[in-house]
Amino acid sequence: MARFPFSAIVGQDEMKLALLIAAVDPSIGGVMVFGDRGTGKSTAARALASLLPPIMVMDGCRYGCSPEAPHTCPGPCDSTKASKRPVPFVDLPLGATEDRVLGSLDLERALRTGEKTFEPGLLARAHRGFLYIDEINLLEDHLVDLLLDVSASGENVVEREGLSVRHKAKFVLIGSGNPEEGELRPQLLDRFGLSVEVRTPREIENRVEIMRRCAAHDADSEAFAAQWAEEDEKVLQQIARGQKKLAKIEVPDSVLVDAAGICSAVGVDGLRGELTLMRAARAYAALKGAKVVKRDHLLHVAPMALRHRLRRDVLDESGSTARIDRAIAEHFG
Amino acid sequence: MARFPFSAIVGQDEMKLALLIAAVDPSIGGVMVFGDRGTGKSTAARALASLLPPIMVMDGCRYGCSPEAPHTCPGPCDSTKASKRPVPFVDLPLGATEDRVLGSLDLERALRTGEKTFEPGLLARAHRGFLYIDEINLLEDHLVDLLLDVSASGENVVEREGLSVRHKAKFVLIGSGNPEEGELRPQLLDRFGLSVEVRTPREIENRVEIMRRCAAHDADSEAFAAQWAEEDEKVLQQIARGQKKLAKIEVPDSVLVDAAGICSAVGVDGLRGELTLMRAARAYAALKGAKVVKRDHLLHVAPMALRHRLRRDVLDESGSTARIDRAIAEHFG
Amino acid sequence: MARFPFSAIVGQDEMKLALLIAAVDPSIGGVMVFGDRGTGKSTAARALASLLPPIMVMDGCRYGCSPEAPHTCPGPCDSTKASKRPVPFVDLPLGATEDRVLGSLDLERALRTGEKTFEPGLLARAHRGFLYIDEINLLEDHLVDLLLDVSASGENVVEREGLSVRHKAKFVLIGSGNPEEGELRPQLLDRFGLSVEVRTPREIENRVEIMRRCAAHDADSEAFAAQWAEEDEKVLQQIARGQKKLAKIEVPDSVLVDAAGICSAVGVDGLRGELTLMRAARAYAALKGAKVVKRDHLLHVAPMALRHRLRRDVLDESGSTARIDRAIAEHFG
Amino acid sequence: MARFPFSAIVGQDEMKLALLIAAVDPSIGGVMVFGDRGTGKSTAARALASLLPPIMVMDGCRYGCSPEAPHTCPGPCDSTKASKRPVPFVDLPLGATEDRVLGSLDLERALRTGEKTFEPGLLARAHRGFLYIDEINLLEDHLVDLLLDVSASGENVVEREGLSVRHKAKFVLIGSGNPEEGELRPQLLDRFGLSVEVRTPREIENRVEIMRRCAAHDADSEAFAAQWAEEDEKVLQQIARGQKKLAKIEVPDSVLVDAAGICSAVGVDGLRGELTLMRAARAYAALKGAKVVKRDHLLHVAPMALRHRLRRDVLDESGSTARIDRAIAEHFG
Amino acid sequence: MARFPFSAIVGQDEMKLALLIAAVDPSIGGVMVFGDRGTGKSTAARALASLLPPIMVMDGCRYGCSPEAPHTCPGPCDSTKASKRPVPFVDLPLGATEDRVLGSLDLERALRTGEKTFEPGLLARAHRGFLYIDEINLLEDHLVDLLLDVSASGENVVEREGLSVRHKAKFVLIGSGNPEEGELRPQLLDRFGLSVEVRTPREIENRVEIMRRCAAHDADSEAFAAQWAEEDEKVLQQIARGQKKLAKIEVPDSVLVDAAGICSAVGVDGLRGELTLMRAARAYAALKGAKVVKRDHLLHVAPMALRHRLRRDVLDESGSTARIDRAIAEHFG
Amino acid sequence: MARFPFSAIVGQDEMKLALLIAAVDPSIGGVMVFGDRGTGKSTAARALASLLPPIMVMDGCRYGCSPEAPHTCPGPCDSTKASKRPVPFVDLPLGATEDRVLGSLDLERALRTGEKTFEPGLLARAHRGFLYIDEINLLEDHLVDLLLDVSASGENVVEREGLSVRHKAKFVLIGSGNPEEGELRPQLLDRFGLSVEVRTPREIENRVEIMRRCAAHDADSEAFAAQWAEEDEKVLQQIARGQKKLAKIEVPDSVLVDAAGICSAVGVDGLRGELTLMRAARAYAALKGAKVVKRDHLLHVAPMALRHRLRRDVLDESGSTARIDRAIAEHFG
Repeated sequence: MARFPFSAIVGQDEMKLALLIAAVDPSIGGVMVFGDRGTGKSTAARALASLLPPIMVMDGCRYGCSPEAPHTCPGPCDSTKASKRPVPFVDLPLGATEDRVLGSLDLERALRTGEKTFEPGLLARAHRGFLYIDEINLLEDHLVDLLLDVSASGENVVEREGLSVRHKAKFVLIGSGNPEEGELRPQLLDRFGLSVEVRTPREIENRVEIMRRCAAHDADSEAFAAQWAEEDEKVLQQIARGQKKLAKIEVPDSVLVDAAGICSAVGVDGLRGELTLMRAARAYAALKGAKVVKRDHLLHVAPMALRHRLRRDVLDESGSTARIDRAIAEHFG
Repeated sequence: MARFPFSAIVGQDEMKLALLIAAVDPSIGGVMVFGDRGTGKSTAARALASLLPPIMVMDGCRYGCSPEAPHTCPGPCDSTKASKRPVPFVDLPLGATEDRVLGSLDLERALRTGEKTFEPGLLARAHRGFLYIDEINLLEDHLVDLLLDVSASGENVVEREGLSVRHKAKFVLIGSGNPEEGELRPQLLDRFGLSVEVRTPREIENRVEIMRRCAAHDADSEAFAAQWAEEDEKVLQQIARGQKKLAKIEVPDSVLVDAAGICSAVGVDGLRGELTLMRAARAYAALKGAKVVKRDHLLHVAPMALRHRLRRDVLDESGSTARIDRAIAEHFG
Repeated sequence: MARFPFSAIVGQDEMKLALLIAAVDPSIGGVMVFGDRGTGKSTAARALASLLPPIMVMDGCRYGCSPEAPHTCPGPCDSTKASKRPVPFVDLPLGATEDRVLGSLDLERALRTGEKTFEPGLLARAHRGFLYIDEINLLEDHLVDLLLDVSASGENVVEREGLSVRHKAKFVLIGSGNPEEGELRPQLLDRFGLSVEVRTPREIENRVEIMRRCAAHDADSEAFAAQWAEEDEKVLQQIARGQKKLAKIEVPDSVLVDAAGICSAVGVDGLRGELTLMRAARAYAALKGAKVVKRDHLLHVAPMALRHRLRRDVLDESGSTARIDRAIAEHFG
Repeated sequence: MARFPFSAIVGQDEMKLALLIAAVDPSIGGVMVFGDRGTGKSTAARALASLLPPIMVMDGCRYGCSPEAPHTCPGPCDSTKASKRPVPFVDLPLGATEDRVLGSLDLERALRTGEKTFEPGLLARAHRGFLYIDEINLLEDHLVDLLLDVSASGENVVEREGLSVRHKAKFVLIGSGNPEEGELRPQLLDRFGLSVEVRTPREIENRVEIMRRCAAHDADSEAFAAQWAEEDEKVLQQIARGQKKLAKIEVPDSVLVDAAGICSAVGVDGLRGELTLMRAARAYAALKGAKVVKRDHLLHVAPMALRHRLRRDVLDESGSTARIDRAIAEHFG
Repeated sequence: MARFPFSAIVGQDEMKLALLIAAVDPSIGGVMVFGDRGTGKSTAARALASLLPPIMVMDGCRYGCSPEAPHTCPGPCDSTKASKRPVPFVDLPLGATEDRVLGSLDLERALRTGEKTFEPGLLARAHRGFLYIDEINLLEDHLVDLLLDVSASGENVVEREGLSVRHKAKFVLIGSGNPEEGELRPQLLDRFGLSVEVRTPREIENRVEIMRRCAAHDADSEAFAAQWAEEDEKVLQQIARGQKKLAKIEVPDSVLVDAAGICSAVGVDGLRGELTLMRAARAYAALKGAKVVKRDHLLHVAPMALRHRLRRDVLDESGSTARIDRAIAEHFG
Repeated sequence: MARFPFSAIVGQDEMKLALLIAAVDPSIGGVMVFGDRGTGKSTAARALASLLPPIMVMDGCRYGCSPEAPHTCPGPCDSTKASKRPVPFVDLPLGATEDRVLGSLDLERALRTGEKTFEPGLLARAHRGFLYIDEINLLEDHLVDLLLDVSASGENVVEREGLSVRHKAKFVLIGSGNPEEGELRPQLLDRFGLSVEVRTPREIENRVEIMRRCAAHDADSEAFAAQWAEEDEKVLQQIARGQKKLAKIEVPDSVLVDAAGICSAVGVDGLRGELTLMRAARAYAALKGAKVVKRDHLLHVAPMALRHRLRRDVLDESGSTARIDRAIAEHFG
C-alpha cells in the first residue's frame, strides 16, 4: 500500500512549512507538534519522508553509510557497492529503553565469542532521515534530552560497558504531544527548534474533503498516489532548491535587529529564540528562492520559532501565538 | 464442555453488532466495551470466536500462516501441509510483560547454541482471531498503545536485542473496562474504532431467561449448543456475506457530509471520528446486504463510532449516547 | 499431632455451610471469609480438608494426576501405580510471586542441560484440594485475578519463556480478610462465589466450650480426634451424597423468578449474583438430600451468595446482610 | 567476655516472667516487648539463652538435629556423634531477606555441580533456641507473618525453585518495638502469645544498682558471672521443673469461665486471647510447681496475655494495662 | 601533602575531647557530630587518625591482623612478617551498599573456580582505626543500625550466600549530620555514645586565625605539620596514658548516684544514658591522669553523653545543652 | 567545525572570570552556574577548554598520564611515547550510573579470562580537563557528592567488587542549573567553590551582536576562529601567568580580617566561605599579575565566592548578590 501523499494533506499549512524548513536545515533542531489527537500529525511527517528521493546506502551497513563517505561508521561495513533505500522514518516506541535508542553491547555475542560488538540502535537507523516521537511528553526526560543532544550534534557517542562508539546520526527530530496530557519541561521545549499547533479543521468542506481523500486512498492507494505525484514533485523541487541556496543567503543586520526586538518584546529567555528565528527565516527565504532574508520572512516564521519559548505571563491570558502576533503588530504594524 | 452459543446471548444487541462489524472489517480498529461487571462481556466475544469456521494453518507454524500465503512468517515454518484450527481467541493476562505480548529472543536457546531465535508472543497467537483484554484500564499505557498500533497495522515489528522480526498479526482487539474503576486516557480511547455500553438487564423476564439458559448449559452444554446451532449458522452466513461485499460498497458524498455534520455537531476532536463512522457504516451496510451506504446505516452506527470521542462538556450533564442521539435528531429529525 | 476435627468447631454455622457447598460444587467459585482475627477461619478450612477421604494420586506425579485419568498432566508422570495422599491444602504465602503460584521454567535445569522443563507451582499442588489465602486483600490484584480465573476454569495455562503448559487445577479457593484492613476491589469480590462473615462468639458458654475443646486437643490430639470421628464421618457422608445428587437436581422456574427478584430488589450489578444464587441453592438442596430446589433453599443461601455484590447505598447505612434480609422479607414475607 | 547473668538484671519482673513462661511452653507463640530504648530488652533475652544448659547437636548438622531424633533433617547429617553447643540465640538483622531467613537454594553449588542443595537459613539456626527481632515494627509484614507461622508450627516448609524442604524450627520468638516509632498491624500483634511493657526504672537506687552491676561486669565479666551463678542455677531448675510438669497440669472449668469473662469484659476480638490466657496460666502454674491452675495464676498473667489484643476504645483513654486491671477488679475484686 | 595537624585546629574543644575519649575507650560507642557545614568536622577526625602512631599489620592480611594476635582473621593471612601501616581512616561513601560495607562473596572467583571466598568490606578496612560517616542522616536506617552493632561488639558477622564469616572490626565510629537536613531516628541516636555540637566560630580573631593556618598549610603542608609536631606529640602521650590507666580507675558510688540524679532530672529514657555517662567520665578521668572518677569529671562530660538522649519537651524550648546545664546547676550548684 | 572562540562570547564577564580563576587554581572546587536556559553556559566552558594548549598524554593510556609523571596510573600504560591531545572536556550525561562515572570492573573480561581489570570511567577521561554537568540539580545527590569529593581531592578511589584502584582525576568541575527547576541541597551547594549567575542580555545591541557572531560562526567557523585567535591567545597567556604566580602570592592579615568581616556580616555558615574567598582572591590577584592580594581583589570575587552560601533570610527579600554588595558597601564603603 502506498503512503498518503504529502500534497494531499488538507490544510495544516504551518505544520507542513515547519517540516519543509527542517528538511532544508536540519540543524534547526527538531519540530515539536502540539495538537489534538487524530489530526494527522504523523501522517504528514511520514508523507514528507516518503516523498523525498531514495538515498544511496552502502550494502550491509547498519549505520546507513553514504557512498559519498563510505566506511565512516564503526562497521562492519566493507561492501564496495551501494543500493537505494527509502529515506528512513523511525517511530520511537513509547517505553523504549536507552539501550534500544542508543545501541548497546551485543551481549549474546560477547558472552559467546568474547568479542565486544556494538549493536546499533534506533538512532543509527534514523540517520539521514526522520525520528518521530509520538506523545513525547510521556518519554523520560533524560531520553528526550539525549535525543535533542544527538539531533543537535548529528552524532551519537556511546561510552559504556567498555565500548566507545561514535557514529553519525543526522535526522530531523519530530515530537508530538497534546498539552492537555502533561507538558515537556521548559528546559527541553526550549531545545526544540520549531513548534507548530494543529487543530481539528472546523469547516465541513474540509472535513468532507479529508474523508473523500481517505476513501480514495483506502480504495486504491497506488492510483491515489499517482494523482498527486505532480504536486509532490513540486514540493521535492522546492526542498532541493532550498538546501542548495541555504549556505549563500545573506542575513542583513536590520533583520537581526528585528529578531532581537521581537524576542525582547515577547519575553523569550535566553538566546536560542533569536538564533533559531534567524535560522528559520534563512531557511524559509531559501525555500522561497530569495537571496537575502527579509523582514517578511522573519515575521512569517516567528510564531513557530518562538511560541514554545515564552515565559508564562499570569496577567496575559491570551495564548502564545496571540502574544507573538501582537508583538509583531506593535513593532512592525 | 462446549462454549456458550453466540445466538443464545440474551439482549446486548449493540455489543453483538459491534463484534459483527469488527469481524467484517477488522481494520476498523478494535471494540471497547464499557460496562457493569458480570454482564457477559467476554462470553459474547468468546462465543463469536467459536462460532466462526475453523481456519487452515500450516502445520508446526507458530505464527498461524495460512496455506493461501504459506511460509510468509519468520519461521520455522516448512511443512507443506495445513490443518484446521479453531479461530484463535487470546485472553491477555493482566500483568503480561511486553516480551510476552510481542515475543522475544529465546534467551535460553541463544545462550546454549549461540543462535538468535525469535520466540513468538501473544500477538502471533492472536493472528487471524481475537485478542481480548479484560479491564484494559489496568494495563500500562504503553502496552495499550502498542496493541492498538499492531491492531491498526496488522503487523508486529520487533526490533531489539539484535533481532529484527516482522510478522502478520491481524486480529480484532476487544477491550473491556468499568468506567468506575479508572478510565483510559482519551488518547488511547480515541484509537479504538468502536465502543459499546452494556448494562445489567433490568427486566425480570430477561434475567430469568438468562438463568434458564445458563442452567441448561450447565446441565448439558453439547445439547444446548445443538439447539442454537441453526441460529449460529445464520450469523455465520451474514458475516461471510458482509466480508465478501465490503470492498464493493459505494459511499456517496451526501453520506460523507452527514458524517462530518454529526461529528462537528457533537464536538469530536480530530478526524478519526468521521473516518471510523464512514467505515463502520460501510461494514454495517455490507452486513445488511446493501450496495450503497445510506443515511440510516450511518445513523445506526453513529453512537458506537463516536461515543468515546466526545469532549467532556461541563454544561451538558447528559451522557455521551444521549448527546449523539440529540445531535442526530437535530440534524436529521 | 492430629488436626482439629471439623465437627468440633463451635458455632460458625454459615462458614461451615459455605465450605460444604463449595466442596459439593467447586465450580461455584471460591469462598470469601470476612471477619475478626482469631476466629478460626483457617482452622475450619483445614479441618474440612483433613476430614475428606484421601485421594489416589499417580506415583511421582507432581500434578496430582488421578488414576482415573492418568498421564493427563504435562509430566513426567509415567508410573503405573497410584498411592493415597491426603486432600491437598495449600496455604498461599503472602508475598508469593507469580512464578511460585503458576509454576515456571526450571531455570537451573535449562541452563545446565538445555532442556526446558516446567516446574509446577502452588496451583498444581492445590489440584483436587483447597487453596487458602489469608488476608487476601494484601495480595496484588493481578494475582487475585489470576487465582480466580484458574479457580473458575479448573485449568492453569502458562505461556511464557517459550513454555506452553496446561494442567488441571481444580480446587476450592478460600480467601479471608478483615474489612478494617483494606478491601478487595469490587471487580474481584464479585468473582468470589460465596462470602461469609465470622464474628467472635459473644456467649460465655460458647467461649468456655471452645477453650475446653482446645485444651483437650492440646493435651492429646489423637484422643480428641477419636471422640469426634463419628460426627466427622456424618459430614463426610453428607458431602458425598451431595456431590452425587448435584447433577440431577431440578431448578423450577419459580425459583429462578425468585432469584431474579431478590437480586433486582437488593441492587446487584451484573448476572453473577443470580447465577451463583441458583447454583448455591442447588448445591444446598443436594446437601439436604432434596430432588428439587425450593424457595427455602434459595433464601437460606441468599446472604452468602449476594452479600459481597451489593452496591454501596449511601442512604442505607444498614449492613449488606440486613439489606438482603429486608429484601427477602419484603418479597416473601 | 561472659554474658550478663539473667538473675543480675535489676527489676523488669514482667519481662523476665514472660520469657520464663515462653521457655516452659514455646507453643504460646512468642513474646512481644514494648518499651523505651536502652532498657535491656535484648540483654534479658540473651541472658536467658546463655543461662540454659547446652544442648546436644549431631556433629556437622546445620539444622541442629538432636541425638534423640537424629537424621530427621534434610541433611547432610550423617555423623553418629553429637557434641554440646550453647542454646542458639539468633538476632534477626533488619533488612534480612526472605531467602536468608527461610534458607534458599545454594545457587553457586547448583550452577557448578548441577545439584540442588538447600542452604539453611536463620530459622534453621534458631532451632531449639531463641529468635530475637529488634524493632520488629520495621520488618516487612509478610516476613513477620512468616516468622509467626513458623514459630507457631515449629516447622519451616520451603517450597520453591524446585526445592521442597521441611525442617524443624522450634524456637521462642521475641520481638521488641517502641510504640512511638510505628506499630505492628493488629493482625500481626494478635498472633504474638504474650506482650510486656518495659520502662526505664524511676528509683535512683535501682539506677545506681544497675550502673554498679554494669561497672562490675565491665571490669571482670567472669568474676561477675560467678557471683550470680547460684541464682541463675535456681532459675534453671525452675524452668526444668515447669517443662516437666506442664503436660499434667489440670485446668478446671471455673478458670476457663474466668478467662472468658475477662476477655469478654475488656473486649478482646477473636479467641486467641482466651486460649493464650489459659496456656500462659498453665505454664505459670507449672513454674510455680502447682498441680492445678488457679484463678490467681490466671489473673497474674492476664495483662501479658491480653494487653496487645484490646480494641482501641476512643472513650477510654486509659492504657491497655489499666483497662485489664480494672476489668479484673470489677470481676474478681 | 601532609594532613592538617590535630593541634592546629582552632577551637572546637568539645569535639576534640569527644574524639580523645573515644580513642581511649572505643567501647563507648561512637561519636555523633551535629553542626553547621564547613566547620571542619571531618578534618578533626582525620587529623586525630593521622596523629596516632602507625600500627603493625601482618603482611598481605586484608583484615588488618595485628602481630600480637596473628592469623585470627578468616584469611588468607599466612605471612610471618608484619609491617607498619597508618591508622585506618575509612570514609563511608553515601550510597554504599550493604555488601560493600560488610563484605560479600567474591562472586567472580566463585563462578570461575567454584570456591566460596569472602571479599572483606569497609568494616574490615576500618579495623583498628576510624569509620567516618558524613551526613549519616542520609544513610539507610538498617545500615546505620548495622554499623552501630558492629561498632558496639567489635566484631563483624556475615552470614549469607552460604558464607559464615566472622572477623574483628574494632573502630571508632564517627557520624556527622546537620539537624536542619533531617534527623536520625531517636532509636539510632540513642545508640551513639557521645554527641557534640560544632558551630561556626563567631569571633573575628578565630576566623582570621583559621584562614591564616589554612593559608600556611596550603603553602607548605610539611613545614606547617613540623610546626605543630610537638603539640601533637603531647596529645598522643595523653591518649596513650589514658588507655593504660583506664582499666584501673575507680568509680565511687557517690558518682553513680550523681549520674543517676542528672539523668533522672533531665529525663533520659532508658539506661544507656547513665551507663555511657559513667564510662565517659571514667575515660575522661583517665585522660586527666586521675585514679578515681570525681564529680567534676562527670559534670564535664555530661553534655556530650546525654545531649542526644533527651526527650523532646514541648514546654521547654531551650536546647538540649541548656537543659543539661540547668539540671547540673540545680543539683550541684 | 571549529569551536566558538572564548573571546567571542559577548558579555557574561562574571562567568568567564570564574572559569579563569578555576583554571588557575582548580583546588578552588568547581564552578556552579545558575541561570536562564540558552545563555551559552556550556558554550563558554567548552570554549575555554578548546582555547587551552593541547596536553601531552602517554600513548595508549586510558588515564591521561602525563609524560612528566608517566606510568603513575593503574595501567596498562607502558608506551614510552607521548602524543598531543586536546584538553579533555567531558559532558556528564544525565542518567549516568555510578559505574560509568567512577569506572568499574570489566565484567566481560573477568568472566572470560578470570582477570580482574578496571574499566576507567568518565572521571579518568576528565583528568587534566573539565567535567561539565548540565542541570546538575537533576543528578542524584550521592553522585554530586562523589563528584565534589573527587574534584576536591584530585583523586578517584574505587574500592569494590574486589577491586582497589586509585587514579588521578584532577579537573575543573562545572555545574549548571536553573533555580526554577529545583535546587541543590545547601550541603552540596556549599561544596562548590564559586558560583555565578548568567542572565539573558537585555540590550538589543548585545543581542544583535551575538546573532551576528553566531551567523558568522555558522557560515565559516574556521574563518571566524581565526578572527578571534589573537584575543584567545591573550587569555591563554593570562592563565599561564596566573598559574605560575599563584604559589608565591602573599595574603596579608588585613585581607584575612576583611574576608572574615564580610562573611560574618552576610551570615555565611561554616568556614568554607572565607577560605574560598581567600583562595579566589589569591587566584584573581595572580591573573592580574599582582604580587600581594589587595582588598579590591577580595571585593571583586566576593559575590562569586559567597553568593551560594548565604542563609535564607526571611526578612530580607533582596537576592544574594544584593546582600553581599550591601555588606561590602557597609564595611568598606
